[in-house]
Amino acid sequence: MPKINRYVDIDQVEKEAKKDYIDRHSPFIHCEAKAKKGEMFQVTVKMGKEYTHPDDFDHYISNIRLYNRETKLTDAAFLAGVLGGQGAKGHQTVTFNIILQKNAKLVAQSYCTKHGVWESDPMEVTVE
Amino acid sequence: MPKINRYVDIDQVEKEAKKDYIDRHSPFIHCEAKAKKGEMFQVTVKMGKEYTHPDDFDHYISNIRLYNRETKLTDAAFLAGVLGGQGAKGHQTVTFNIILQKNAKLVAQSYCTKHGVWESDPMEVTVE
Amino acid sequence: MPKINRYVDIDQVEKEAKKDYIDRHSPFIHCEAKAKKGEMFQVTVKMGKEYTHPDDFDHYISNIRLYNRETKLTDAAFLAGVLGGQGAKGHQTVTFNIILQKNAKLVAQSYCTKHGVWESDPMEVTVE
Amino acid sequence: MPKINRYVDIDQVEKEAKKDYIDRHSPFIHCEAKAKKGEMFQVTVKMGKEYTHPDDFDHYISNIRLYNRETKLTDAAFLAGVLGGQGAKGHQTVTFNIILQKNAKLVAQSYCTKHGVWESDPMEVTVE
Repeated sequence: MPKINRYVDIDQVEKEAKKDYIDRHSPFIHCEAKAKKGEMFQVTVKMGKEYTHPDDFDHYISNIRLYNRETKLTDAAFLAGVLGGQGAKGHQTVTFNIILQKNAKLVAQSYCTKHGVWESDPMEVTVE
Repeated sequence: MPKINRYVDIDQVEKEAKKDYIDRHSPFIHCEAKAKKGEMFQVTVKMGKEYTHPDDFDHYISNIRLYNRETKLTDAAFLAGVLGGQGAKGHQTVTFNIILQKNAKLVAQSYCTKHGVWESDPMEVTVE
Repeated sequence: MPKINRYVDIDQVEKEAKKDYIDRHSPFIHCEAKAKKGEMFQVTVKMGKEYTHPDDFDHYISNIRLYNRETKLTDAAFLAGVLGGQGAKGHQTVTFNIILQKNAKLVAQSYCTKHGVWESDPMEVTVE
Repeated sequence: MPKINRYVDIDQVEKEAKKDYIDRHSPFIHCEAKAKKGEMFQVTVKMGKEYTHPDDFDHYISNIRLYNRETKLTDAAFLAGVLGGQGAKGHQTVTFNIILQKNAKLVAQSYCTKHGVWESDPMEVTVE
């Protein structure tokens, strides 16, 4: 409490509205599975795979943060209107650059001003 | 994942070090149990009741945020050194002012740069 | 750029609308002029003295931060609706607690989602 | 106050230490000069061109934010250690995605925990 909502494979979901609801609220981590120790490593967090989220003043994605296990790495806030404003929709997306010294387990969380906290599937990164 | 750590009544905890660990990392909500609809209502979040947390560069409380059920209300970040810096200890404390229109269930979360996310006991507020 | 707006004594301003505009957007620091070295010291930042600011989704105070000279101490974000929501108005107010080791010069900055960055008059604090 | 430090062409600066100081603290905006109206537009903000900044606990880049004229678009916080930690150095870099409806003038600000606020040169973007 607050509830942490988690992604569910939308292929297993029947109703179109629910697929949309789950997908557009879920942060997805896009990065390589392997990183080089001590070198810059790009991690993109993108909201939704197939469905876009509104960017209305009273309903938008206001935050994306990235954790490595228990450790917070980054915390990005967005103001309403950044994705086109009232009536517009989009995949809120941010690319962070981190340097890893050992294997990592990345997790992203996002916050929708109407539908709360959502957490990505974890992404294991092997560091060599 | 990241784990949400929660307060446990430290009177039930035997080891002094564990009491200290749990207490100093837990945010506690201090506010009245009743609020007047549409009027300013003070909510203080204070880290720890009996034990203080370090304010070292590599170990400090960097964040306190307040939720009403699923809705985030405020999000306060602190830089290391604000409570006296290296070698100092303190109860990180912040007082927010909110206006409630109906009954609320407040929850605070804090973040320690070494020991992750901690969540307060919820505080029910009746609005009249 | 972005412009840093600063408070102007509104007694010197003739037009009522302009008095209101300046006052409600200005953060004011409320604290003692003297602090005890190494002890908790309360600093309240309150928006406006006489005029209140809207808390509408497309027009609200989304941020208050506190500096000691060049050093950022705290950075608090607020979501729209925290002061009552659409149609409501209020003085956004937050109380931070800091520990000072030597004389300080505090400055607050706030951000209005329509009218940008505003800076308070500085507040000198003698530490004994 | 706090002072807004601004980039100065380091080719005009003689002392190596000063070139390094200015360059590593300056945010640079990297994006196209033209954007398509209503389409995703990438804006990367990277600290420094030639010199890297430490990522030590007591000295790191803790914040990068992006403005369009007076309007804040995004605000990203970084924890110490994200670029490799004690002894490591790097160009803190973040890529935001925004949608523009009309010509923009982007400006980035960053915050170094030891050397305060720095502002980028503005970047004009024509929207077609």
